[in-house]
Amino acid sequence: MPPELLLAIEALQTLPGMGRRSAMRIAFDFIRKGVNPTKNFCNALTALVEHVCACEHCGAYKTQGQPCSFCDNPKRETKSLCIVENPSDIFAVENTGEFRGLYHVLGGVLSPLDGMGPEELKIPQLKARAQELQIEEVIVAANPSVEGNATGHYIAEMLKPLGIKVTRIATGLALGQALDYAETQAISQSLRLRVTL
Amino acid sequence: MPPELLLAIEALQTLPGMGRRSAMRIAFDFIRKGVNPTKNFCNALTALVEHVCACEHCGAYKTQGQPCSFCDNPKRETKSLCIVENPSDIFAVENTGEFRGLYHVLGGVLSPLDGMGPEELKIPQLKARAQELQIEEVIVAANPSVEGNATGHYIAEMLKPLGIKVTRIATGLALGQALDYAETQAISQSLRLRVTL
Repeated sequence: MPPELLLAIEALQTLPGMGRRSAMRIAFDFIRKGVNPTKNFCNALTALVEHVCACEHCGAYKTQGQPCSFCDNPKRETKSLCIVENPSDIFAVENTGEFRGLYHVLGGVLSPLDGMGPEELKIPQLKARAQELQIEEVIVAANPSVEGNATGHYIAEMLKPLGIKVTRIATGLALGQALDYAETQAISQSLRLRVTL
Repeated sequence: MPPELLLAIEALQTLPGMGRRSAMRIAFDFIRKGVNPTKNFCNALTALVEHVCACEHCGAYKTQGQPCSFCDNPKRETKSLCIVENPSDIFAVENTGEFRGLYHVLGGVLSPLDGMGPEELKIPQLKARAQELQIEEVIVAANPSVEGNATGHYIAEMLKPLGIKVTRIATGLALGQALDYAETQAISQSLRLRVTL
């Protein structure tokens, strides 16, 4: 096998969910397509990583130098804040059409054994932001895991003294199922059935 | 969704076997990895399409300017020639370890309705090459499809008058299953049980 082919297959195998056979199929497909389509493909990926960044306020993905489609959008309702682990989770929540408020990306969940405490996540910023924006309800949409639930309770304890209602999306999702891979209907139901913490 | 993210997801969705959710997962993974790992990934793909080409004799993938690992390899047995549809099929046959001869990539199979006649494939070159190399046996390892079988019979009719034995790999493979996705053992058996045409 030519070394360039071996290296390309190895690079493709680093992608999430990509086995060796799929990686080989895709490598062969690139050879068949040739130089220009492959360069266009690479340009799309390069533009992605060079121009997409996290909003400094909410953590949602945005184009560098452009307004945030949530924070800077006058059509969004500003009294509720949805907490997610990762920016990609926002698309899963948005697809339901059930939530019109603002977002706050934590960057993970509390996990003391992995060294993830409140300071490692955007939890201090959450408190400051919830006060500054005079948020009335915080919806915790962390993944339905032990750590996600613990994170929800931590946030509830932190914000309830400030008079903020803290809710948790209903676990219409199976425990351990990742939010950004769940069915839109299940996420939709879990938003409607959210419970006060 | 930032336009760069949308374009990257669309580019990823053009890869074979890639659905929208997998494409989104991979796009988010690239953002998380950042600029340098993404550039390394793109460099591997660019090197692949810029430096890997088909051998002008057998059609196998090789590095441009380098010798062919089959045609220019003195350890290969030179009396038998294995015919495959695509260069990627060669890896599937090589994995079995059952064949030590040379290869000939057709570039497809005969399919008159799709305008694929012998001249559109490397069939004239096959005849010339089999004579020049004084091949004793040609093994047709086209995919087990109606067109693959018809192509085998066409090649048999062409080469038998020249005193060349033409065989077809046994259909230990299910009809319609693609060669480069089959289990190595099934390909192995189909090489051992090949039948004379």
